Amino acid sequence: MPESVLREVQDEMLCLPGAGASLLEISHRDKLFVEILHDAENTLRSLLGVSDDYGVLFMQGGATLQFSAIAANLLRGTGKRAEYLLTGSWGKKAISEAKKEGEAVAIYDAKETNYDRLPGASDYTVSDDAAYLYYCSNETIQGVQFQNEPECPASVPLVSDASSDFLCRPLPVDKYGLLYACAQKNAGPAGVTVVVMRKDLIEKADPSIPGYLYYKNHLDNDSEWNTPPTFAIYVLGKVARWLRDDIGGLAEMEKINREKSSSLYKIIDESGGFYRGHANVECRSLMNVTFNLPSDELTAKFISEAGANRLAALKGHRSVGGIRASIYNAMPREGVDALGQFMADFLSRNG
Amino acid sequence: MPESVLREVQDEMLCLPGAGASLLEISHRDKLFVEILHDAENTLRSLLGVSDDYGVLFMQGGATLQFSAIAANLLRGTGKRAEYLLTGSWGKKAISEAKKEGEAVAIYDAKETNYDRLPGASDYTVSDDAAYLYYCSNETIQGVQFQNEPECPASVPLVSDASSDFLCRPLPVDKYGLLYACAQKNAGPAGVTVVVMRKDLIEKADPSIPGYLYYKNHLDNDSEWNTPPTFAIYVLGKVARWLRDDIGGLAEMEKINREKSSSLYKIIDESGGFYRGHANVECRSLMNVTFNLPSDELTAKFISEAGANRLAALKGHRSVGGIRASIYNAMPREGVDALGQFMADFLSRNG
Ligand SMILES: Cc1ncc(COP(=O)(O)O)c(C=O)c1O
Ligand SMILES: Cc1ncc(COP(=O)(O)O)c(C=O)c1O
Ligand SMILES: [Mg+2]
Ligand SMILES: [Mg+2]
Ligand SMILES: [Mg+2]
Ligand SMILES: [Mg+2]
Repeated sequence: MPESVLREVQDEMLCLPGAGASLLEISHRDKLFVEILHDAENTLRSLLGVSDDYGVLFMQGGATLQFSAIAANLLRGTGKRAEYLLTGSWGKKAISEAKKEGEAVAIYDAKETNYDRLPGASDYTVSDDAAYLYYCSNETIQGVQFQNEPECPASVPLVSDASSDFLCRPLPVDKYGLLYACAQKNAGPAGVTVVVMRKDLIEKADPSIPGYLYYKNHLDNDSEWNTPPTFAIYVLGKVARWLRDDIGGLAEMEKINREKSSSLYKIIDESGGFYRGHANVECRSLMNVTFNLPSDELTAKFISEAGANRLAALKGHRSVGGIRASIYNAMPREGVDALGQFMADFLSRNG
Repeated sequence: MPESVLREVQDEMLCLPGAGASLLEISHRDKLFVEILHDAENTLRSLLGVSDDYGVLFMQGGATLQFSAIAANLLRGTGKRAEYLLTGSWGKKAISEAKKEGEAVAIYDAKETNYDRLPGASDYTVSDDAAYLYYCSNETIQGVQFQNEPECPASVPLVSDASSDFLCRPLPVDKYGLLYACAQKNAGPAGVTVVVMRKDLIEKADPSIPGYLYYKNHLDNDSEWNTPPTFAIYVLGKVARWLRDDIGGLAEMEKINREKSSSLYKIIDESGGFYRGHANVECRSLMNVTFNLPSDELTAKFISEAGANRLAALKGHRSVGGIRASIYNAMPREGVDALGQFMADFLSRNG
C-alpha cells in the first residue's frame, strides 16, 4: 500500500471530509459514499481506458467467487463448452468451479512441466463456439505472466483472472469479454474485487442463478444492488489516484515494474546456476519472481536469514518450492534493492 | 462505530502493533492477522455464549449472499421444502432467492397489514420435515422485532437473518440451526457477514454448489478458504471487544438499547396521535423506530428541519413512508436525546 494512501486514510478515519462522520459510519447510500464509489470507478476507467461498452463492478467474495460467477453467467444453460488454458494453480481452481455449471475443458495444461511455461498459439485450439476462453494473466504461485493476450477467435469472449497483475501495466480491455481482479495484490485492501465486462455479454445470463452471482444485478445498480464493501472501495479509489497522479499512469508503472523485476532476474541469471528461475525466461512475471536454490537446506537458510533482515514472506508455495518474491506495485525500489543485495550476499557466502 | 474503536484503528493504520506494516499490507496468512481473526471469533463466542457445536464464520457478499447460501446448503437436493415467516422486506428478498434452489413457501405473510405485526404461535404451522424455518429477527425497514424465537419443531432447524439486531441483546444461539448478520448495522463495517451455524447441519450440504457458497469450505478452513475481508474483521473484533469490555456484555447493551428506544416510543405514544408508530406496540424494534406523521407535507418538513439540526438519515423506506430512526448500538444516548428533543419541539410547533 503506498504510504501516502495510508496517511490519507489515517487522517480521514474519524471524519471523512464533508461528512461529519467516519466513512465506516455513513451509509452506502449517502451521497458522499456514492461519489467515492463513482470516483473509484472513473479513475479505473481512465487508467485503463475502459469504454462505455464495458461495465466496471465492485464485488465481494474475492477472486474465488468469480470462478463460480463467470461460469454461472456465461456457461450455465448455454449448451456450449467453456475452454480453459491451465498455466498454474489458480486456473485449476477456476476450472473446478466451472465444471459445476456446465462443460468446461482444459485445452492446454502445463502440468507436465510443473507450470513453468505458457502456450504459444500453436499449442491449443479454441472452438469457434466456445462459451468463453479463460486464462489467468499472471499465475501468482508459479510466477508465469502472459506478455500478450492469448489468441482467441473473435466469436469467443476472452475471460481473464488478472488478480495478481491488474494495474501493473496497460491492459487492452477491448480484447476482453470479462476480466477481474481481487484487489489485495495491486489495487487495494482485501474485501473488494473489480470486474470489468462487456455489457452485452452478461445480458444473456440466466436470471435463476444466485442473485449475488448474477452480474446484471450489480451492473444495473452501479455496484449498489446490496451493500458494497465501502471501506475497501474507498481505499482502492485512493490507490488508483496514486497510480494516475503520483506514478503517472500504467505505462509509467510498467517501466518501474520492469526495472524492479529485471534487477532480480539479473541476479538469478548471473548466479552461475545457484539461483534457478522457475518460469521460463520468456514468460517471467513482473510481479512474482520465483526461483529455487540448490538444496532444501539452503532454501531454509535463505528464508531464515532474509527474515532476520526484515525481508519477509519469501517462502515459495509448496507446489513450486524455493522462493517467491512478490514485488507488487506498492513495493518501492528500495525494497527490491534490499532483496537483491541480500541475494547477492547470500550467493557469495553460500555459492 | 464507537469513537474509541475509530481512534484505535486510526492509531494503528500505518503500523499494526508487532507487524512493522499496516494491517492493509500484511497477508491474511500472516500469523498476526490469523490471531486477529481468531480473537474476533472468540470475542463473539464469549459475548454470545456460542458452544463448540457451532461454527462462527466470516464471509463476504453481505446478508444478500446468505439468502442464496442458506438455500443452496440446506434446501438444494433435499427434496424437502423450506418454510418462511414473512414479516417485512428482507424476508421477502430471502424467499425469492430460496425459490431458485428448491421449494420455498411462506407459511405466514403479514403483507395485508403492511408488515406492522409479527405472528403468534397460532398464526402458522411448521411442517415437521421442513428443510428449515426461516425468519428475520428484526425487519429493518418496518421496525418489527421478535421478542423471542418463533415456535419451531425440534426436528426443524431454525434460521435467522439477524443483520439488524445482532449483538443488540443476548441471543440463545442453541435454539438455532443457523443465524447470520451483515456487520454494517451493529457489528462493524460493511464488507463482512458473520454466520453462526450448527456444524452437523452443514455437513450434509451438496458439495456441487458454488464453492464460495458451500459453508463447509469456510468452516474447514477457519474462514480462510480464500482471502477473507481482513480490515472489516479487524474492526469487527474491536467492536466486539468494546461491547464486552466497555459496555459490559449483551445484557448491559440491551438495557441501554431499551432506554434509548423507550424514550422515543414514549414521545410517539404521548403525542396524541400526531406521531403514529408503524409497528404494533408488542413487536416494536429496539433498533429501528418507525412512525408516520399526519401528512406528507409534515413528513417532508420534519426531515428537512431535522437535517438542519444535524439529525440525518431519517427518511422512512418508501414502502412504509414516514420516518425511520435507526438507533444501533453505537448511537450514543445523547444522539437519541437530541432526536427526542427535536420530535417534542416539532410536535409543539405543528401538532
Ligand atoms: C491469480 C489469483 N487468482 C485468484 C486468487 C484468489 O483470490 P481470493 O483469495 O480473493 O479469492 C488469487 C489469490 O491469491 C490469485 O493470486
Ligand atoms: C435485515 C437485513 N437483511 C439483509 C440486509 C441486506 O444486507 P446486505 O446489503 O449486506 O446484503 C439488510 C441490509 O440493510 C438488512 O437490514
Ligand atoms: Mg456505472
Ligand atoms: Mg445495507
Ligand atoms: Mg474456528
Ligand atoms: Mg489471496
